[in-house]
Formats: sequence, C-alpha cells, structure tokens
Amino acid sequence: MIKASVVGATGYTGLELIKILTRHPRVKISSLTTRSEEPVSLDKLIPSLPKNHGLKLETFSLVKVASNSDVIFLALPHTQAMDVAYDCYKAGKIVIDLSADFRIKEAKLYEVWYGHKHSKKELLGDAVYGLPEAYRGQIKKSQLIANPGCYATSILLGLKPALESRLVDTDSIVVDSKSGVSGAGKKLSETTAFCNVDENFSAYKVNQHQHTPEVEASLAKFAGKKVSFTFVPHLLPIDRGILSTIYLKKKKGISAKKIRQAFTQAYESEPFVRVRPEGTFPSVKDVAHTNFCDIGIWAHERSDRVIVISAIDNLLKGASGQAVQNMNIRCGFPEAMGLV
Amino acid sequence: MIKASVVGATGYTGLELIKILTRHPRVKISSLTTRSEEPVSLDKLIPSLPKNHGLKLETFSLVKVASNSDVIFLALPHTQAMDVAYDCYKAGKIVIDLSADFRIKEAKLYEVWYGHKHSKKELLGDAVYGLPEAYRGQIKKSQLIANPGCYATSILLGLKPALESRLVDTDSIVVDSKSGVSGAGKKLSETTAFCNVDENFSAYKVNQHQHTPEVEASLAKFAGKKVSFTFVPHLLPIDRGILSTIYLKKKKGISAKKIRQAFTQAYESEPFVRVRPEGTFPSVKDVAHTNFCDIGIWAHERSDRVIVISAIDNLLKGASGQAVQNMNIRCGFPEAMGLV
Amino acid sequence: MIKASVVGATGYTGLELIKILTRHPRVKISSLTTRSEEPVSLDKLIPSLPKNHGLKLETFSLVKVASNSDVIFLALPHTQAMDVAYDCYKAGKIVIDLSADFRIKEAKLYEVWYGHKHSKKELLGDAVYGLPEAYRGQIKKSQLIANPGCYATSILLGLKPALESRLVDTDSIVVDSKSGVSGAGKKLSETTAFCNVDENFSAYKVNQHQHTPEVEASLAKFAGKKVSFTFVPHLLPIDRGILSTIYLKKKKGISAKKIRQAFTQAYESEPFVRVRPEGTFPSVKDVAHTNFCDIGIWAHERSDRVIVISAIDNLLKGASGQAVQNMNIRCGFPEAMGLV
Amino acid sequence: MIKASVVGATGYTGLELIKILTRHPRVKISSLTTRSEEPVSLDKLIPSLPKNHGLKLETFSLVKVASNSDVIFLALPHTQAMDVAYDCYKAGKIVIDLSADFRIKEAKLYEVWYGHKHSKKELLGDAVYGLPEAYRGQIKKSQLIANPGCYATSILLGLKPALESRLVDTDSIVVDSKSGVSGAGKKLSETTAFCNVDENFSAYKVNQHQHTPEVEASLAKFAGKKVSFTFVPHLLPIDRGILSTIYLKKKKGISAKKIRQAFTQAYESEPFVRVRPEGTFPSVKDVAHTNFCDIGIWAHERSDRVIVISAIDNLLKGASGQAVQNMNIRCGFPEAMGLV
Repeated sequence: MIKASVVGATGYTGLELIKILTRHPRVKISSLTTRSEEPVSLDKLIPSLPKNHGLKLETFSLVKVASNSDVIFLALPHTQAMDVAYDCYKAGKIVIDLSADFRIKEAKLYEVWYGHKHSKKELLGDAVYGLPEAYRGQIKKSQLIANPGCYATSILLGLKPALESRLVDTDSIVVDSKSGVSGAGKKLSETTAFCNVDENFSAYKVNQHQHTPEVEASLAKFAGKKVSFTFVPHLLPIDRGILSTIYLKKKKGISAKKIRQAFTQAYESEPFVRVRPEGTFPSVKDVAHTNFCDIGIWAHERSDRVIVISAIDNLLKGASGQAVQNMNIRCGFPEAMGLV
Repeated sequence: MIKASVVGATGYTGLELIKILTRHPRVKISSLTTRSEEPVSLDKLIPSLPKNHGLKLETFSLVKVASNSDVIFLALPHTQAMDVAYDCYKAGKIVIDLSADFRIKEAKLYEVWYGHKHSKKELLGDAVYGLPEAYRGQIKKSQLIANPGCYATSILLGLKPALESRLVDTDSIVVDSKSGVSGAGKKLSETTAFCNVDENFSAYKVNQHQHTPEVEASLAKFAGKKVSFTFVPHLLPIDRGILSTIYLKKKKGISAKKIRQAFTQAYESEPFVRVRPEGTFPSVKDVAHTNFCDIGIWAHERSDRVIVISAIDNLLKGASGQAVQNMNIRCGFPEAMGLV
Repeated sequence: MIKASVVGATGYTGLELIKILTRHPRVKISSLTTRSEEPVSLDKLIPSLPKNHGLKLETFSLVKVASNSDVIFLALPHTQAMDVAYDCYKAGKIVIDLSADFRIKEAKLYEVWYGHKHSKKELLGDAVYGLPEAYRGQIKKSQLIANPGCYATSILLGLKPALESRLVDTDSIVVDSKSGVSGAGKKLSETTAFCNVDENFSAYKVNQHQHTPEVEASLAKFAGKKVSFTFVPHLLPIDRGILSTIYLKKKKGISAKKIRQAFTQAYESEPFVRVRPEGTFPSVKDVAHTNFCDIGIWAHERSDRVIVISAIDNLLKGASGQAVQNMNIRCGFPEAMGLV
Repeated sequence: MIKASVVGATGYTGLELIKILTRHPRVKISSLTTRSEEPVSLDKLIPSLPKNHGLKLETFSLVKVASNSDVIFLALPHTQAMDVAYDCYKAGKIVIDLSADFRIKEAKLYEVWYGHKHSKKELLGDAVYGLPEAYRGQIKKSQLIANPGCYATSILLGLKPALESRLVDTDSIVVDSKSGVSGAGKKLSETTAFCNVDENFSAYKVNQHQHTPEVEASLAKFAGKKVSFTFVPHLLPIDRGILSTIYLKKKKGISAKKIRQAFTQAYESEPFVRVRPEGTFPSVKDVAHTNFCDIGIWAHERSDRVIVISAIDNLLKGASGQAVQNMNIRCGFPEAMGLV
C-alpha cells in the first residue's frame, strides 16, 4: 500500500482522481486538500462514494501532505501548480502534476502560451512528459511527471505510429478536435452556461490553443524533425469526451495496409489503446468513463489521404486516469490496476 | 398570390416548408400530400400552427396537385422524387425538388452514389442546382430546381469566394462537418435513437458521403477545373444545425487580407450570407431557426493556412428555407420574403 | 403604427420581445435600452435579425424613452422595475412590466417573498395582472400591466376552469412543475452551468417558490375563496418550456365529462389555449417557440382524481409572448397579431 | 467464487449486469446468452470491457446454462421470462428475474396489466419480491427473486418508512415520477427517437403505468391495509435516472420531526439508501452510475403536507445493481460487494 494525496481535490480532475484512488487496491488516500474557503462536502461532490467513507477535505499544508504521502497528485490550475510541485519535489515525494506547468521544456515558450512567468525553471529538466505510450521508460524513474493535456493526448496517440513509421508527410497535418464541456473546468463562464452550450456547437481558440506547444514537442520526437500542425478545437454539448479527426497525407508509394499495420503493431500490447477494425471508427461513448483511447483509421489505395479518428474521455485518459496509469508505472503496479 | 403544394409533407423538410409557407404573404397553400396510410394530424406535427388553421393532409394525386398549384415542392426521399418531378414538370408546373434526384448532371454518377437507376435522365439537363448565391440567374428562369443538400450548402458557400478568386490551392481541401440529427430524416434507426446520440459524438460515412458529387460539380465551376476534397461528416447530439470547418492553403504570396476581402465582397449584397468580423466565428445557435449561412475566416500573414467555418440550419438554408428562397427568386418576389 | 420600447433589452425576455416586435405589423421599435456598461451587439444576441436591421442598444434615459414611446416594456429584474415603471407611468405611457414588482397587491406579501421594500405601493392598486384569459376586460383599459410569472401562467391556466366551475376540491391541490433553464435568467450560477444541468434533473425551492403568492391571489378569485396549493418546481435539462402536472380531486358526484367540458368551454374561443383531445397530453415541444398553452385532462368515472397537464414556452406565453398579447389587447389590435 | 450467467445479455439491463459482474470479486461469468440472430460484439456493446476480456455471447441453451451456473440472471422482456425462469428454477438454480413476470402474486392482475397469459402460475408463490430494504430475510432463502421495477423501487423506498410508521394518510398519495430514456429499453420507437426526446418533456401512461400493481402490493404490506396512489410517469431528455416526487399528508398531530426520524431510522444501516440532511434534496446526478437511492424530505410544523423526493439510477438500483445486491444477499456475500 502506498499513501497518495490530491492537492486541488475539488476540481473536475481532482474529483475523478479521488473516485479512482478510493477503488485502487494498492493505494490509501492520505490527504485531500482544497484552497476553497467555504466548507465543501465530498458526499455532494462525489455522490458515488459509499456511506461513511471517512474522507475529508483540508486546507493545504506542505508539512502535512509531505509527511503522510508517497505520491502527490497536483490538480491545480495552470500557473498555480509550479510552486507547490517544487516544494513537494524538494520534500522527496513523487509528484504527478496534472497542470501544464512542467509539460513544456522551454520556459520562454511556456510563458508565451500561458502568459505567466515560470518560477521554477530549474525543475523543467527533471520533469517527464507523462504519456505512457511514448515515455514509459522515463516515467518509471521520474520523480516529477507532467501529465499531458486532454487534447494533446488524443492528438499524440493518433499521430505517433504514423510519424514514427515515417509513412506520412509532416507538412500538412490538420487536427479537428471536439471536446465535452468538462474540459473547460469548473469556473463559471458564459461559454459554459447551459443555455449557451445546449443545442449549440462552435469552434474556439482557432489555431491558437495552448496545448499546441506540448503537442509539437512530442511530434518532433516522433518524427525526428520539427512538425507543425493546424488545430481547431470545438465545444460539444456533452459533459465529457474528446474526439479528434486527424487528416494526413501518405508519402508516395505507401500502401494503406502499411499505414494500418503501423498502428496495430504500435498499440498491440498497450493496455489502454485499442485500434478499431478496418472500416469502423470510435465514438465518444465508446470511451466515456474509461481510460481507453480508441483509434479508427481510414486509408485506401486510391487516395493519398489518411484519416485517423481518436477518442478519449478527457477526464480519464485525458487527465486523471492517465495520472493513475503513470502512478502505476512509477510505483511498479500492474499498469491497468484500478483503471478497468 | 401563388398557389403552392408540398408533396411529402410529413417529413422534417416538408413540415418546415409548411411552417414557412403559412406565413408567406404571397403564397396560398393548395395541397399537402403524404404517402402515409395512417391518418396523421397536422396539429400534432406542427404544433405552432394557429387554432383552426384549416390545412389538411391528402393522398397524392397528380391531377389534383397539378390543377391547383403554381409551384410544387417535392420533399420526398431520394430516388422517389424523380418520377413525381417528371409528371409535375410535364404538367407545366414549377418544381422545386428537395431530394438529390436532379442535383447531379451525370446519371451514371448519381447511380453510383445513390444505388438506384435514374429513370428520368432526359430532365437532368433542364434542372438547375438551386444554390442562389451561385446560380441565381438560372434559377430565375428554371422550371425544375434541384435544391442542394444540407452539407453541400454549408461547404459550397464556405468555398466559393476562395475558389473563384483563385487565392487558394485546390489540391488539399479538407472539410470536417458536424450535423444535428434531423439531417438524418425521420426514419427510425439505431443511429438516431436517443440513448445512442445523447452524450455521444462520432464520425460516419468517412470520406464517402453522398453529397460529395454535387459538391465537386459546383467546386469545379467555381475553380474552373476539377477539384476534389476530403470530407468527414459527424453526428452532433443536437436537433438541428450544421457547422463545417474547412481547411485550405493560400497560394504563395497571397495576403490574409485578400482572402478576407474575397469573402466580404462576394457576400456583401447576399441577403442570407453573413461574413463574421475578423477573429470571430459562427456557432450553430447563431443560425438555428434562420435561413442564414454565417461564415468566419481565419487567415494570418505568418501562416499559409486558411480556415473557413460556415454554419447553417440544415432544415432551413440547408433545405426548406433555401427552397422558399428559390421560389421567391423564381416567382419574382423579394428574395427574403417569408424568411426573416 | 405604435412606438414601443424595451427597457432591459439584453436579458432572455427582452431579446424575445425584440424578436416578436420586429415582426409585428403595427409596431415600430423606438428604443432598446440596457444597463450594461459593456458594448453589446444585437446581432450576436439575436442572430435571427436580418442583415442591416438598424436596431441599436442605448443606455436608459427616461426622457428619451418616454418621449418616443407609446408602450414601454420593462424586462428588468425583480425589485429593479418598480421605480422605472413609476416614472414611465407618470409620464403617461402604457407600461407592461415583465417583473414581479406589481403582480402582488399587498406590498407586505411582496416584501416577504422578494426580500425587498416596495417603493411604489401607491401604484399597486392601478396595476392589472396581465393574464388575458382571466382579466382581458381590465387589461383593455389599464395603463400598468403586471405580466404574470411563467410558472404562474402554466398553473393558473391549468386550474381556472376547474375552480370557476366549482367542480373540484380546493384543499388538496398539488402542482408538480418542470421548467427549462432559461427560466432562471442569464445570470451565471453553478446551478445553471452546463455540467450541472446536463443529464441531470432536480427539484428546487420545494414548496417555497416566489410565484406562490401571485398564483394564490388569482386562485382565490377563480374559486371565490382562499385556496392554497402544494408546489414543487424542478429544473429540466432543456433550454425552454414548462410542463405542470396538476393533481386535483373531483367533488362528490361530479362526472368526468363535466370536468372536461369545463375546460373546453372555457377555452373554446381563446386564441392561445388549446385543450387536447381526450386521452392525449401536451409535451414541451408542442408549445416551444409558440405563444400557446396546451392542456390535457385525465378524468375517469371510476376515480375521484383529476389530473391536468399544462405546457407553455416559459419565454413566450410565460413572458414575452404574453406581454405582446397584452399589448395587442390594450392597443386594440387583433389579439394574435405578431404571435402566430 | 460462484458461477453466474446472464440470459438476455444484450439489452440495457443485461449489459449493466455484465459490467458489474466482471468486477465482482466473487463471481465468474459462465454464460452470456442472446436471442439475437445477428452476431453482436460485446466490445462494441460494453466499450468499458478491458482488451482481451475473453467473454462471448451465445445462443441460449438450458442444458448449458444450467450446467455451468449457480445463479442465473434473466434480463428478458416481460412475458418472455416466465418459461425460462421455470426451467432454470426446476434445474435447481437460483434465478434472479429482472422482468415483471413474477413480481405480482395474482396471475389475474398480471394478465390485466401485461396483456399476456401467465403460463407458470405455480411458481408465483415461491417468488420473493427483491426489494432488499423490505424483504431481505426472504431473499436470503429464496430460489426465485423477482427483481422490482425501476419506478417501483423509487416509489417504495420513498414511501416505506412513512407508511410503516403510520404517520401519514393513505388515501391521497400522489407520485410524480420522471425517468431517463434507457428505462424504455432498446427497442426502436418514435417515442425514443432523438429528435422527439431532445429539448422535450412529457407525461405518458398517465395513471396507468404497469408498475402500479407491484407498488400497491408492497404498499399494502407496509401500511397494513390496501393503499392506492395516483401516479404519473414522465420522460426526461436524459439517458438514465429516475426522480420521484411524492406528495403525502401527515396525520393530525404528527410533528415534522417524527416524519424525518422515521426515514433516518429506517435507513440508518441500509448500505444503499441515503437520507439527505434537512432542507436538501437529491438530484439525478447524485445517484447516476451508482446503486444508491437518495431521499430528501420536506416537512414543516405549519403544514400538513409532506413531500418526499427519491432518486435512483433506473439501470442500477432500479434494475441490475439491485439484482446483484439480491445475489449478494442470497449468496451470503457482503451486500455492497461489487457495487461501490
């Protein structure tokens, strides 16, 4: 049994973490903290908790959290995680940060996209990008895991085999993503008010979403060279789920079969990536409330076009599920433990 | 006052036609016909009709409909409209066909995409494709108007200025469309059952939707050469509305400003196309229950990419609203009459 | 042509008023005012307005609004309408107030339910409760019309014939109402955030909703004696619409047929109330986007129970549609003008 | 470890059973059967199953199912379960029947409400109504458990303490229930087509729902005398969940506190019923995807009215969750095993 804490436990990702950790056979929840001044009831926030669960929310105290935790999950807003992460790291704890604060290696780039000075640049080198399918080896040894963004996860898993196999062009990638509303977090806004989302659908942050740099960093690793992509996120009138439709071009002479093989082979032994049979494509409901990323591929001999459709639950494989997957890897537990 | 009839009045597009025509100041509805054997109540189907509206549904009779109509709208399923259209046309009536049966000039191509022999090829030459923004002059004089498909309308209006102005490449067009469920019609199917659509989102007919040939035919006219495009339609968990996100590449040396100008100039005096101010993009709710097509454009000097987002109501500008717009043009009424 | 202004034009009811008034053949909109400091675009708020509509929003000025208006609609929050209403009334204008400020004759009662001192008690006597089906005669002559609440409208129209006919008991009335989210207005709140409403349903203000006193006041008039009722409102995951399920008991010896007759006769010549055929009941979609109130009745010989189900669009018959209906009555226009 | 089979595995309740049983630490799934002729993939039907789960669907064979099962769950349509139940019962297996076929003790009454002759009347006496909170002792010893209907569960749990304590009148009970669409099962129908449910809400089977007799049977046991109730079910535009608003009258002289106490005491040690703190009421999301029934109570000294609001997930506490709870009771496992 390890002891795990969640800092920022009352946001959507914090609550999902608690749900998973309470069922995890090798974890004891030690601290759940919130910055909220108002008293909040966990029963109300997570109605699926059993009666008399005994969990409670507390104000964050580094001394307390550090002293009673082996692993600390940070589910804080971007820009507010870096200092806490630093303190926990220095206290020798394993830190899994769900914010963007340690995802981008270059502090300058972070500062441009997030509009905030990075106060803990010295830790950027130690952080590992927590996409298990790409960086499992490093995650095993890391003390600071930067859990990927939800869009980033859906895009990177949809592109990795295509780029690593060198089967597609890298200069005309188009990604059209659609996300449920929980991706926007709990903060009240006109954009996420019921009457504005219901029966509606729209694009936002057209070609300027902040997940762009973390995606480009991994794409460059997969392709062995700089890769840029066009990216339009859209807001779906649903609670949770992301579907990304990715448009690629095969290199000359590449068969459709080769494309498909690249995906099936790459993900054959991955516990949480499922490549769909030819001619079928995933829907959001196929992965909602699971840690799976499902992938469908369109490729034909008569066309140079390849279309990849990937679907995840933004709060699980796109956030808290992946964070626990990373914890499992780091702590030597079976990778799917507590997640199926 | 003209007399107008709707054949196939009980489907979604038929019902929308009735709603518009009952309020149209220059139209008297003469016949509403249905093939349904069961008695159906118009009050139940169109609850917004006033008390004691006096309208009734009848079984189709060519003699009756032809004798009492100046304009006949056909809101029949694909493959079932062609013979009725022929009879009405031969009876000298103005026919506005909302099905796909006369949209494609080449019978062979129609037969490939719709899996049905075309029994009235001789009329294909006389039919005009009813997209007012492209073919207004011909519509004015036509006796058989093939009303465009809903996806086709959203795509063609989003591409026309870019292609006609020769400002973009024509070999890498990507169209990612999302449609509400009413686009699938009233027929019961698992795909459109509530529990399968609710909280869900998925692609379908990936790169093989039947609107492809009618779009390509008009694109070729706009561009002056054959143009193909990649097209993935998706199903949104909403009743009505289509949003198409279109990915283009500027030709070398073309400024973002020129792109934008092409759109604003092309649609300046169009009553039903609105180009959004720079940096803003339409949502489905902006056009739902209206005959508008709203268009937003992303173009920047530092990028060769152009993104066009177009939104329509699939049942209005994508079907019945456009059909009435065509009637207005054909009959010499103000083009927006009954539609705002 | 009369000149009409809307004060508080940017809330949900204000926007609906503008939509109706722009199509009303006897009205010219003279002023639209808002208290918002930020510039707001009417095009964005009411996307169905035609291109180049020429309408604009202004800051409220009594002098200006009074000088250019025959009728002034107040679409302000409760407690904020009373002073403006007073000023407009004193300027000799016809005032149609959509707030609750003049619905309750006893200032004390108002103050208990709305938690706010009534500063214009002297006007309460002049105000007429604007439910046309009950007070048409007085509305015709009134200069201050207090437009009913949305729940109140659905409940009162569902109860009036039963009480006036003295066919039901008055001591055990139960009303179970369900409303769409637009009824809560535009103000941001956790309660109306998408992720809290979507796939959810709950009761609120159980037996303590503020529409209670205005309902009881009219019920007493209908029944000729004090009547109280049990009332639980619920929040539906939809944009608009109210459905009220009303549970009554027949008096001894009363036949089911008599109950039904009371309703059909009472509403026979009402333009906006439709009594459903026996065995059928209205749904929210039957009245959404219309000014109708649809009513279904369950009554059987073998049971002393009567169930009445009434449905309205909360923003139309429950607010702005009814306000225009009142204007039509007051100004001598056909009652349904601009509303069908 | 026990061996459990699901007959009728591809309907909504069958699929939920599989989801629960695959995670149950004391159960091995032995057979999953379907009457469907078409091959169906469990992966598609239950996307949350892990990769390589090894489960498969088969055609029903009594010999096979009986030989390899200790417990057999029947998730068949009403009227189709009785014969299979009989055969499995005669083979000596524990049968948990999710249909209505053995819920009503009087065959005549069953035949009136379900329009179908009861072919296995001889088993009605042996069947136990599977509501653990009322019949736990009998369930422990039963070989044929008739799992309650979803509405019935929400109503009975909301009424039991009030009736058993003799604190409320029994002659004027009103139950207004609202259910998500999955309650209607998977069969295609106009009623459950997306465009008819979305943005809609309506009553159905007004005072004639088929759960009425099973509810009345248990109410009579709770109250010690015949009790009838008025019942209107409604269809919510959501996937899952039932909320029942129950209107009661206190007997003379009964305090609000006593009412509340009756509920808290009755459910204090129940693992799956949670009574809400005073002034708070459950919402559907509080219980969705859980086996809980949450209950809120409104009672005041100044009113003779009592309002009880109960919420469950129709597919879990209203069907498959309760079925597994019954299995746990019957097999001597901890009652909440596999359910939290």
